[in-house]
Amino acid sequence: MADASLIGMTVAELAKLIQAKDVSPVAVAEAFIERTDATEPQLNAWITLLPDETRAAAKQAEAEIAAGNYKGPLHGIPVGLKDLFWTKGVRTTSGSAITKDFVPSEDATVVTKLQEAGAYAFGKTNMVEYAYGGTEHNDLYGAPRNPWELGHVTGGSSSGSGAAVAAGQVPIALGSDTAGSVRAPAALCGLAGHKPTYGLISRFGVSPLSWSMDHVGPLAHTVEDVAIAMNAMVGYDPRDPGSANHPPEDYVAALRADLSGLRIGVLEDDFIWDVTVPEVKAAFEGAVAQLTSLGAAAEGVSVGNLDRIAAAQFTITTAEANTYHHEMIQRAPELYHPVVRRRIEAGFFMPAAAYVQAQRVRATFDQRYNSLFETFDLLVAPTTPSPAPATSDINVRLPNGEMPSRETVRLTRVFNANGLPAISVPCGFSGDGLPMALQFVGKRFSDATVIGAAHAYEQSTDWHKRRPTL
Amino acid sequence: MADASLIGMTVAELAKLIQAKDVSPVAVAEAFIERTDATEPQLNAWITLLPDETRAAAKQAEAEIAAGNYKGPLHGIPVGLKDLFWTKGVRTTSGSAITKDFVPSEDATVVTKLQEAGAYAFGKTNMVEYAYGGTEHNDLYGAPRNPWELGHVTGGSSSGSGAAVAAGQVPIALGSDTAGSVRAPAALCGLAGHKPTYGLISRFGVSPLSWSMDHVGPLAHTVEDVAIAMNAMVGYDPRDPGSANHPPEDYVAALRADLSGLRIGVLEDDFIWDVTVPEVKAAFEGAVAQLTSLGAAAEGVSVGNLDRIAAAQFTITTAEANTYHHEMIQRAPELYHPVVRRRIEAGFFMPAAAYVQAQRVRATFDQRYNSLFETFDLLVAPTTPSPAPATSDINVRLPNGEMPSRETVRLTRVFNANGLPAISVPCGFSGDGLPMALQFVGKRFSDATVIGAAHAYEQSTDWHKRRPTL
Repeated sequence: MADASLIGMTVAELAKLIQAKDVSPVAVAEAFIERTDATEPQLNAWITLLPDETRAAAKQAEAEIAAGNYKGPLHGIPVGLKDLFWTKGVRTTSGSAITKDFVPSEDATVVTKLQEAGAYAFGKTNMVEYAYGGTEHNDLYGAPRNPWELGHVTGGSSSGSGAAVAAGQVPIALGSDTAGSVRAPAALCGLAGHKPTYGLISRFGVSPLSWSMDHVGPLAHTVEDVAIAMNAMVGYDPRDPGSANHPPEDYVAALRADLSGLRIGVLEDDFIWDVTVPEVKAAFEGAVAQLTSLGAAAEGVSVGNLDRIAAAQFTITTAEANTYHHEMIQRAPELYHPVVRRRIEAGFFMPAAAYVQAQRVRATFDQRYNSLFETFDLLVAPTTPSPAPATSDINVRLPNGEMPSRETVRLTRVFNANGLPAISVPCGFSGDGLPMALQFVGKRFSDATVIGAAHAYEQSTDWHKRRPTL
Repeated sequence: MADASLIGMTVAELAKLIQAKDVSPVAVAEAFIERTDATEPQLNAWITLLPDETRAAAKQAEAEIAAGNYKGPLHGIPVGLKDLFWTKGVRTTSGSAITKDFVPSEDATVVTKLQEAGAYAFGKTNMVEYAYGGTEHNDLYGAPRNPWELGHVTGGSSSGSGAAVAAGQVPIALGSDTAGSVRAPAALCGLAGHKPTYGLISRFGVSPLSWSMDHVGPLAHTVEDVAIAMNAMVGYDPRDPGSANHPPEDYVAALRADLSGLRIGVLEDDFIWDVTVPEVKAAFEGAVAQLTSLGAAAEGVSVGNLDRIAAAQFTITTAEANTYHHEMIQRAPELYHPVVRRRIEAGFFMPAAAYVQAQRVRATFDQRYNSLFETFDLLVAPTTPSPAPATSDINVRLPNGEMPSRETVRLTRVFNANGLPAISVPCGFSGDGLPMALQFVGKRFSDATVIGAAHAYEQSTDWHKRRPTL
């Protein structure tokens, strides 16, 4: 019988026990394997589980630590990998029927980096097909369920990563975020989820959706765990054409206890508030009050024209996804989910001039952000406009109408075009017991500030301590 | 009778006389007006001359300086503006029949900046239609002639700026450089011409060709004059979406006497040497020997795949030019030069995926340059593969074949995709008495290094002192 008390612990908590040799990595592995076996039939969070590899890796970590070679807080920690991270010798489906048997010959750079820090792959998590959507799932693997309420979505496209961490199947998982695919499932599953600055984490060996907006990021119970993972994952990689040669920083050292001296812009744009349900609005307003009480100077601000950048991003993703899928979708269109297929095929009819215009809009937003971040250190907004919609709901009800449920990434997406760092942390629970969240957004390469501030807020609340009963 | 001794002087030389009140700005203006009147019938360097405005501006400068308000080395200096820089109240044709009557309601940012430094517009120089070409000229204004040999091209697209400065009609002029349109005419007319790092000089009020590769830069007799102009022109401008918020530098202070400590990579790619005529090769090799004798460590290096980036740039310019001309060319296709029209119309049939792929190639080159500039401070290559072709020659003869004359930008273009700073300076004269040149290329935002090194080389030679007899 495995040690059930380990389930729901953070990476930092597990690391303390492992480092002190109070708990062996093997016991950690057994606890999470048992938890996953018990809950996976309800959750459907994984496409591939790796119990044999998990046990072998845990044994190796145990031996290393016993020999006095403790590598740091990720040593002996199992990690869930969204099934678009290449894993050497382990199939990597990208949630698709076409690549269901693809077995990479090498690991993604970020997988290698986590292994070097002592972590190991626990399995490959479920996801929206090719990460091209928020809630739509392929027929082959089906949709994960939300551990907080099984009849509700997890958010996507890193749907399995969100479900797995929230349910305590694994203490941390990786996702990718092109429009919100790390932050939205983190928000809807009650987790911390960080989209780093564009280029900070390598995408080599990560199946692309939209190369100029794809980001890799972690989902975990706490911001501290996010910082631990960032310390291992960040780094220049010439094999990713978008990789940035940015000097390394210590994100754990950046965690702070208050927000004194920080100027925070609270987004006032109608683009956000027109679709945000009252419950989320109230929770967000409570969070802003809390930011002020922690010493931040908070002030309303409008980015402006967010509908315009959203339209530009639609164009960019359509063109870039079509570029990647160009050959494959002509060879086997019937193997794509109808919704994903339609989105990719639309790219065939897009002229280059449309993409050029979209890139120009993007550059204009860069200027706007440059000027905003002269006045503010951070921007805050709700992460998703509503708590997790029910699986059966096509629309979310708003005071003045309805919004498609798949619009869960509406508020996250607008920070992908310009590669801004953005982290989501819980800021309350709805009357139905579903998590709600806010996101902190910073200027490019200010991840330390973003993470540090989110930690201060999170630690002043108890939301991150809750676990679903499952 | 104006003072003919002022003709052919550099900006720095004129500035000394003006500052010392040995020569009045009015005398400077009269000298250049007289020179232009005398030579313009042969050269066709200008689309619009502004003698009245020139005299008024010179008088104002004279009064300011008499009152003790000397603004610096550009005070009272006439500048030639390629006819795509917006000038308030003065028509700005972009070398086109369509916009032949366009009168901007404001100045380009860079024009304002030059005026703030005390300079003024002498007139608007001739150019290739919409800057879309190297040697092809519109029928409306015709082609400028090369002051060194009237039967030869000046290089383009800033053809008039090159001819005007070389002939001493004006001491300095502005051009734009999307594929080499500053450096190629500078090289073929025996001048220094600098393409700054992308984003360093504002393009607000500069009619675009290919917005992600357009640069503004000066053509002058010496690198020192380039540095003087750069000091006035550089600066962040939120009205240009590509503008970079880079801290100001003093480019004049960066001028240096030797090259000790500099690691220079000498490009060995076949892409360059397959088309470079023996005379240019010999002059370039002489220049490299000179760099070594000035203290640089020179070493052969290959960028690799330059044909690939050239192809990507063709795609990018086709798409971006089509975006800008989208409406106009559908309204009045017959008003375009047939060659320019064909290039722009090709963009209608380009799918977004092609542009996306081109941008990916570009990002790959960024990585390549990142690694090259870890080993080298500068790269050097010939600026153009041959001296100025004869106007009547469609092809340039090579040892192993021929190359189209319009390929004068083949070697400059490859440094536009990634926004690298690149300056051309003369490195010899052909047997026919035509200038030849080399370019110094640096990493992004190393303009001070590029300019400083080019100055050291230039000052160790006498090529920049020659003037055409005309």
